[in-house]
Amino acid sequence: MSEKRRKLALIVHSGTLDRLYCAFILGSTATAMGMESHLYFTFWGLNVLVRGGLEKAGLPATYKHMEGQMKRKLKEMKYPTLYDLLKRMKASGLLKIYACSPTMEIFGVKKEDLIPEVDEIAGATAFLDVASDADITLLV
Amino acid sequence: MSEKRRKLALIVHSGTLDRLYCAFILGSTATAMGMESHLYFTFWGLNVLVRGGLEKAGLPATYKHMEGQMKRKLKEMKYPTLYDLLKRMKASGLLKIYACSPTMEIFGVKKEDLIPEVDEIAGATAFLDVASDADITLLV
Amino acid sequence: MSEKRRKLALIVHSGTLDRLYCAFILGSTATAMGMESHLYFTFWGLNVLVRGGLEKAGLPATYKHMEGQMKRKLKEMKYPTLYDLLKRMKASGLLKIYACSPTMEIFGVKKEDLIPEVDEIAGATAFLDVASDADITLLV
Repeated sequence: MSEKRRKLALIVHSGTLDRLYCAFILGSTATAMGMESHLYFTFWGLNVLVRGGLEKAGLPATYKHMEGQMKRKLKEMKYPTLYDLLKRMKASGLLKIYACSPTMEIFGVKKEDLIPEVDEIAGATAFLDVASDADITLLV
Repeated sequence: MSEKRRKLALIVHSGTLDRLYCAFILGSTATAMGMESHLYFTFWGLNVLVRGGLEKAGLPATYKHMEGQMKRKLKEMKYPTLYDLLKRMKASGLLKIYACSPTMEIFGVKKEDLIPEVDEIAGATAFLDVASDADITLLV
Repeated sequence: MSEKRRKLALIVHSGTLDRLYCAFILGSTATAMGMESHLYFTFWGLNVLVRGGLEKAGLPATYKHMEGQMKRKLKEMKYPTLYDLLKRMKASGLLKIYACSPTMEIFGVKKEDLIPEVDEIAGATAFLDVASDADITLLV
């Protein structure tokens, strides 16, 4: 990765459909623009990186009643799934996915439980180092 | 807008009273300090830009039981409403409001449904371009 | 504090265990790396700075059913409590805690209600000034 590329450093704390779409659309738009995307998955976000997790994501309690309708609409629009967006970012060669190691210990998640697209298991230090040098830092 | 002004780039993903106040207080304080405020409304945040939406915003499920009390307190304090804060930012000439185009498609929101203060309907590219050059980037 | 230190500027809007841990782990990792950590507590985040508040934090509605299990797990792991992490950051000499003054007025919180680690009661201007000069800006 070139030193001069613009960089997005994004913490994905949420595990709900609405916030994951927000994160993945930002990430995939960034890579499509030639920016590096560094996504650090922690807490509920880490849990959706367990195989099958992205497919099960739903809406938070406040909006639970809209979940069925939203999923139907996305399908009807043939909108890319979360996994589609992740693969698209990955294919760009500009995405790096970090899985938060303390979260894995708290939730008892093992490396082999995670989807193969994860690049690195790391603590907050790794995120702070990348983010210090990023153009855009966000937490979803 | 001058190139040398400080810039705040803020994604408004939330549509609840607590987080909208946070976003609008940050935005209006920024413009009062002479900073540019770029607010990109997406998902639930986009939905409150539909005419009448700001007035209906309530608290999330976790804090729903406190909604009535909080609304009474804000009224009693004669605290500015969300729309008041938005108009105040707008009057500064330093606010730019973006409405997220993919969200509009998912929720079936049309341009004419939105409040007139919206400056631009745009995808994530517009936000990432502005944010790359901003001093502060946040997501609410 | 040296002018050349890297800086983290973090708004703590949330008052739930999952997001507070995220904020405090970021903050304490940052100070351990020699970065300044500026934590601005607002809304539900401000409310947990009331004495006894950090100890009472639980999970949001969406994940409420997992609260007991998570608290037991953290205890079993002898994971530092939120207050432990806050004291650790404080001991580094690199942490500054801001309490949001408008939030204090809305919730009727007085200075003497807050834990003694709070450094300054301030409005959004203080945060925006610090954040303009920070390397990483986030909102939890």
